[in-house]
Amino acid sequence: MSVETYLEAHFDAALDDLKAYAAIPSVSTDPAFIDGIDKASLFLAERLTRAGFDNVERLETGGHPAVYGEILSDPALPTILVYGHYDVQPPDPLEKWLTPPFEPTLRDDRLYARGASDDKGPLLIPVLVAEAYLKTEGRLPVNLKLLVEGEEESGSPHFEATLEAYRAKFDCDLVVSADGAMWRADRPSMTVASRGNVALEVTVTGASKDLHSGRHGGSAPNPIAALAALIASLHGPDGRVTVDGFHDGTLPPDPKILAAIGAARFDAAAYYRDIGIADAPIVDGDSLLVRQWLEPTLEFNGISGGYQGRGTKTVIPASASVKITCRLVAGQKPRAVIDAIERHLTARLPTGFSIAFDSDGPGSEAFAIDPDLPALGIAEDILGELLGEKPLRVAMGATVPIGSAFSRVLGRPAIFFSFATSDEDYHAPNEFFRLSSFRTGMKAWARLLKRLGA
Amino acid sequence: MSVETYLEAHFDAALDDLKAYAAIPSVSTDPAFIDGIDKASLFLAERLTRAGFDNVERLETGGHPAVYGEILSDPALPTILVYGHYDVQPPDPLEKWLTPPFEPTLRDDRLYARGASDDKGPLLIPVLVAEAYLKTEGRLPVNLKLLVEGEEESGSPHFEATLEAYRAKFDCDLVVSADGAMWRADRPSMTVASRGNVALEVTVTGASKDLHSGRHGGSAPNPIAALAALIASLHGPDGRVTVDGFHDGTLPPDPKILAAIGAARFDAAAYYRDIGIADAPIVDGDSLLVRQWLEPTLEFNGISGGYQGRGTKTVIPASASVKITCRLVAGQKPRAVIDAIERHLTARLPTGFSIAFDSDGPGSEAFAIDPDLPALGIAEDILGELLGEKPLRVAMGATVPIGSAFSRVLGRPAIFFSFATSDEDYHAPNEFFRLSSFRTGMKAWARLLKRLGA
Ligand SMILES: [Zn+2]
Ligand SMILES: [Zn+2]
Repeated sequence: MSVETYLEAHFDAALDDLKAYAAIPSVSTDPAFIDGIDKASLFLAERLTRAGFDNVERLETGGHPAVYGEILSDPALPTILVYGHYDVQPPDPLEKWLTPPFEPTLRDDRLYARGASDDKGPLLIPVLVAEAYLKTEGRLPVNLKLLVEGEEESGSPHFEATLEAYRAKFDCDLVVSADGAMWRADRPSMTVASRGNVALEVTVTGASKDLHSGRHGGSAPNPIAALAALIASLHGPDGRVTVDGFHDGTLPPDPKILAAIGAARFDAAAYYRDIGIADAPIVDGDSLLVRQWLEPTLEFNGISGGYQGRGTKTVIPASASVKITCRLVAGQKPRAVIDAIERHLTARLPTGFSIAFDSDGPGSEAFAIDPDLPALGIAEDILGELLGEKPLRVAMGATVPIGSAFSRVLGRPAIFFSFATSDEDYHAPNEFFRLSSFRTGMKAWARLLKRLGA
Repeated sequence: MSVETYLEAHFDAALDDLKAYAAIPSVSTDPAFIDGIDKASLFLAERLTRAGFDNVERLETGGHPAVYGEILSDPALPTILVYGHYDVQPPDPLEKWLTPPFEPTLRDDRLYARGASDDKGPLLIPVLVAEAYLKTEGRLPVNLKLLVEGEEESGSPHFEATLEAYRAKFDCDLVVSADGAMWRADRPSMTVASRGNVALEVTVTGASKDLHSGRHGGSAPNPIAALAALIASLHGPDGRVTVDGFHDGTLPPDPKILAAIGAARFDAAAYYRDIGIADAPIVDGDSLLVRQWLEPTLEFNGISGGYQGRGTKTVIPASASVKITCRLVAGQKPRAVIDAIERHLTARLPTGFSIAFDSDGPGSEAFAIDPDLPALGIAEDILGELLGEKPLRVAMGATVPIGSAFSRVLGRPAIFFSFATSDEDYHAPNEFFRLSSFRTGMKAWARLLKRLGA
């Protein structure tokens, strides 16, 4: 039986594996889910062992453990290090899920569950493919190492130190990331660049406690007003970041990606319609993609302060805060970006307030793959065979922080070979993973390992 | 036994009554507390009956019931209608309470509980005083009517209609409000004017669902950014409201109150130190009081949108909202103020967003008492005797919406005779009521009824 036939024949069991895995609430950003982190890492370690991986272990990282396993076939063959993560985004707002986030449910040939698409489904694929090779051919066409972290959705705070600490263990010729996502459901794509990321929470405080807004209104400092003015100072009328020093080090966009953007013939109006917006703020598709792929951003992810219940409470809150993440392009340094924002906000803080900053992890730099890397061509050929169309080379707005970490620490290139699609709501309610992608992904990984070994 | 001696002798029982009353969670703004509303209105009706009130009933209002009772002594005596409310502010943030909000606790000669100061303690005083008159003298020196509403903290949405509906029942010569508050703990005061109030919640929506801020950042509309810019557009650099039409109808401040402000020798630096702010945004005490008492305000009471948990979630939220209340001065119409704000914000809404408004009740106009009203002089004399110092005439930033309603519907003047003090955290955690105020209040109400009847 061929590997691909074996995978077809065992698809139902594979789907059961994914359901069991996605049922575990392994949210890494919230300590309330520490149990789910433990269970998911254990589940994965056991599944690797059952698939035939050797030296399976949960690696100490200083934070949530990473899961590691390897199948070393022959020192003469190339060694591939597969990357993924077992942690997931928080599931809230819970009330918007049609079925509970941790009760995986099939609807319309899709599996709905938090983490199904990011990254539990895509990561399970190479595990199942390795098992299929062992069951059918008795060996793998490459040496395979698997490294699955548990803090990706928290900004991978211990990832680079973990790479350093286990550098010898992770030695390889190429990294293949099972995390990431195809750009569009209707067009195959290969991600060749991604923006970096850095996170910052800003809290503005006025009085030392909440005050009655009737008695104190007009005299006591209102931190919601101060925070709003600070937020409004961060972008210009064209939506671009106005922070001094924010753009330091940025380079002009890669002409090859600009060419790919032209080839994509992106329809801005359709994009806005898709996300439910009638009146397009950006009308030109090329400009829109440049903004999404190639320009840095400063986005507000959450804001809170004061009374949050129903109706009215006449209070001036003591403080208000906003969560910010920035997407970085080549040349921007995460720490320098944070510093620039902190300087900008501190300089504009009105009298009567204090300001505090909390940066969530070290952030990550932008990342780009060498366009002539042979593995990139191989991966593109396979996608072309299976999906009937040569993939577009795209940049992704979202970061996969590991991109730059592998090249910096291990000195090895990384390609992205994920079968998630970016419309699968993986950071929103009702995340799903297409079963068709699960099937195609297994075929594709089977071919990828074969050809990388050849 | 004199009435005052009787009240002294029964102080412990009075305190037990207050504890039992304040233990009932009668939050009117949140439907989750509907049981507490029911219990508190029932408790009050029973206590009135026990005190000797006649025709006690819970009046249908279209919302939470109002509680009514009367003691009609003699048609030749003046009739006093006492106003108060049995509903309380929401208790959150719960974690900031030293003892639970609905477990009344004595500390340092104060009773700590949500509602102890606003308005359960002050309202219980005239009930206890009426009972004391009946027990000692067998009759009251006036005809007394008591009207206690259950929606004051919700903006009294049905109050004016209730006044209209029961106009004959509420017929009186004078209204005395047991709600309101003394300005300072160290200086007796009489409130002769108060600002009005109006509430509005503003929600800005971008995409139809939450989006990944990595993928969509830079292209999708971010409602937190749009809302912040709208908020920042509502005030000028001096902190005053810039909305066109907001100030329509306002009159110059009453010179008598300006004179009282001068007499108060208000220390702005001490005020800011008190509320925990080192660097005073307004340095002149007179200007500060003018802002607090005599100018309209637009304050933000709560803001929310996007991810509210710990750590980071890379999301562009679908919507963000802010809760606004405005304090109004004489001449401003609540509906016109809301309309002006809605026009201002709608005109400034950027492309790609929609905006929705939700106004919480009809609001209330500002209110001022005739400075020559005899009852005002009587009340001032009594405070002077009991507190050793002639009271200041003050305006209050906070509204007591009933002020203007009584004069408009019943054509009768209202004075404020509350023994709450404005430092008693009545819209914040750890609300308390001074036992000394409870004692003094009973003496004062005993004298007030006697002299109004003379
Ligand atoms: Zn991921
Ligand atoms: Zn009150």
